[in-house]
Amino acid sequence: MRDAAANGQLALLLEVTGTPKPGNVDRHRDHEDLRFEQFVAGAVGARPGLELAADGARVGRAFERAVAGMSEQSGGNTQFGALLTVTPLVAAAAADRLSPSGAAAVVEATSVEDACDFYRAFDHVDVAVDDPPPELDDLDVRRGGDATAAIRDREATLYDVMRLSADVDGVAAEWTDGFARSFEAAGWLLADDGPVYRRTSRAFLRLLAAEIDTFVVTRNGRAVAEEVRRRARAVCDGEADAEALAAELVDRGVNPGTTADLTAAALFVALERGLTV
Amino acid sequence: MRDAAANGQLALLLEVTGTPKPGNVDRHRDHEDLRFEQFVAGAVGARPGLELAADGARVGRAFERAVAGMSEQSGGNTQFGALLTVTPLVAAAAADRLSPSGAAAVVEATSVEDACDFYRAFDHVDVAVDDPPPELDDLDVRRGGDATAAIRDREATLYDVMRLSADVDGVAAEWTDGFARSFEAAGWLLADDGPVYRRTSRAFLRLLAAEIDTFVVTRNGRAVAEEVRRRARAVCDGEADAEALAAELVDRGVNPGTTADLTAAALFVALERGLTV
Repeated sequence: MRDAAANGQLALLLEVTGTPKPGNVDRHRDHEDLRFEQFVAGAVGARPGLELAADGARVGRAFERAVAGMSEQSGGNTQFGALLTVTPLVAAAAADRLSPSGAAAVVEATSVEDACDFYRAFDHVDVAVDDPPPELDDLDVRRGGDATAAIRDREATLYDVMRLSADVDGVAAEWTDGFARSFEAAGWLLADDGPVYRRTSRAFLRLLAAEIDTFVVTRNGRAVAEEVRRRARAVCDGEADAEALAAELVDRGVNPGTTADLTAAALFVALERGLTV
Repeated sequence: MRDAAANGQLALLLEVTGTPKPGNVDRHRDHEDLRFEQFVAGAVGARPGLELAADGARVGRAFERAVAGMSEQSGGNTQFGALLTVTPLVAAAAADRLSPSGAAAVVEATSVEDACDFYRAFDHVDVAVDDPPPELDDLDVRRGGDATAAIRDREATLYDVMRLSADVDGVAAEWTDGFARSFEAAGWLLADDGPVYRRTSRAFLRLLAAEIDTFVVTRNGRAVAEEVRRRARAVCDGEADAEALAAELVDRGVNPGTTADLTAAALFVALERGLTV
C-alpha cells in the first residue's frame, strides 16, 4: 500500500498526466516555457516535503520543504498551488482524519511559524499573484522570508493568511472551506470509470465549469475567466470539444492553474479512498 | 540538489515520458493492457527501495523492495528491468563512484543473500523470461523465493546469477560489462539538446539500432528482434519515421523493453552528471 506521502506525489503526477486539461500542461501538451517533464521533476523533488507532512511536521514547514524540492528544475513554478492544497491533506490522511472536518482542523491548527514558512516558500520560485490591498502591503507574499517580522507583529497564523485572500484565490478558499471542492471532485473521480488520465480531464473540466479560475483572473482578467468557465461548461454539456478548447487556450496563454491545483487535491483524496491506478 | 534516490526515480519517469520510443508505452502511447499512468505509479512506489540503495543497503534487498513498491499498481510489471539497471547505479552514485568501474565493483560485491532477494522480487510481479537450460532448472527465476535453497546450495551471488544469463539478457549483460551501454547512452543524452523527452527518444533509438533487444527475442523471436534493430537504424539514418514505427510496433505487440531499461539507466547517469530538466 502506498502511504500518504507517496499518494501525494502520485496525485501531482496524475494531475499533470490528465489530458485534455484545457490551457494547462498535460501529457500531450507543453507550454513554450514550461514542459511536462519539469512538472515530473517538480513532483520528484516535492516528495521529502510530503514525507515531512505525513510524519507530523508542521504543515508550513512541510510545504516550504516541498516547494524547495519542487523548485529543483528549470521550469520555475510548477506545483506551488498544488502543494498548498495537497500538503495539509497528506497531513490529515496520515493522522487518519481525511475528511472535510479533519482537513479543516489541520489548517485551523496552523501557527504563526507556519505562516513564516509559507512566506519563505515564495523565496524558492516566482508565483504569479495580485497586489495586495494597501493596508496589507507588509504581507505581500512577494516579500518572501522578509515578511516574517510583519507576520509575527500581526500574530498571523497560516490559516489567517489564507483567510485574507480566500475571496480572490481559489486555493485559499479551499483552506477556509474544508476543501469542499476537492472532496466533491474526488467523488467524481471515484464514480467515473476508465483510465485515470481521462477521469482527471473530466474532473478538471467539471471544476472549471463550476467556478471561475482565480489564476486566470490574476493573469488574464475576470472577463476571460468568465469566458473560460462558460466554455468548460459547454464541453461538459457535450456542446464543445475539449481538445479544441485545449489547443486554443494554450495558444492564448490562458492557464487555469487553480483548477489544476484543486484537481491534484481531488486526486489525492481519491487515491486515499481507493482509486485504482 | 536531487539526491541519488530522487534521480533514480526521475530517471524512471523520464524514460516512460520519452516519445516516440517505438513499441513502448510513452507519453503519447498506452498499450491496451498497460498504461503510462501505471508506470508513473510504479516509479512512485519504487522510491523507498531506491532510498535503501542510496543509504547503503544491500543491492538485492534494495531492488526487491523497489520492485515490491513498483508492483503496487494494476498494470503488473512496469519497471522490473529498469530497476535492475538503476538500483546498482544509485548505490554506486551514493558511494561517489558512478563510473563503469565503480558500478562493476558494486555488482561484483553482491552476495548470495542478494541473489535470494532477487529471486524474491519475482514473487511480486510476472516477468516474461525464457526457460532456463535443463541443468539450471532449479534456478528458474519463476520459482521466486522458492529457489533460495538452491541458490544457497550453489553459493551463487547475484552477480553469478546475472553472469548465467548475460548472453541472452541485455540487462544481465550490462551487469557483467560495467554498464557500458548505459554510460555510453548517458553521453549521448548530455551531448544532445532540446527537451529531455525528445533526447530520450533519440537515445532509445540509437540503443535499439546498435543491438538486438533481448526482450523482443524472448517474446517475438530473434527474426523480429533483428528486424526491429534494422528499422531503428533506418530511423537513426533519417530513412524512416519514428512515429510510424512506433505506431506499427505497438500494433504488432513488439515491445523493446530491454532497450527501455538501458535508457532509464542512461538517464540516471546523465542526471547525476548534470542533465538539466
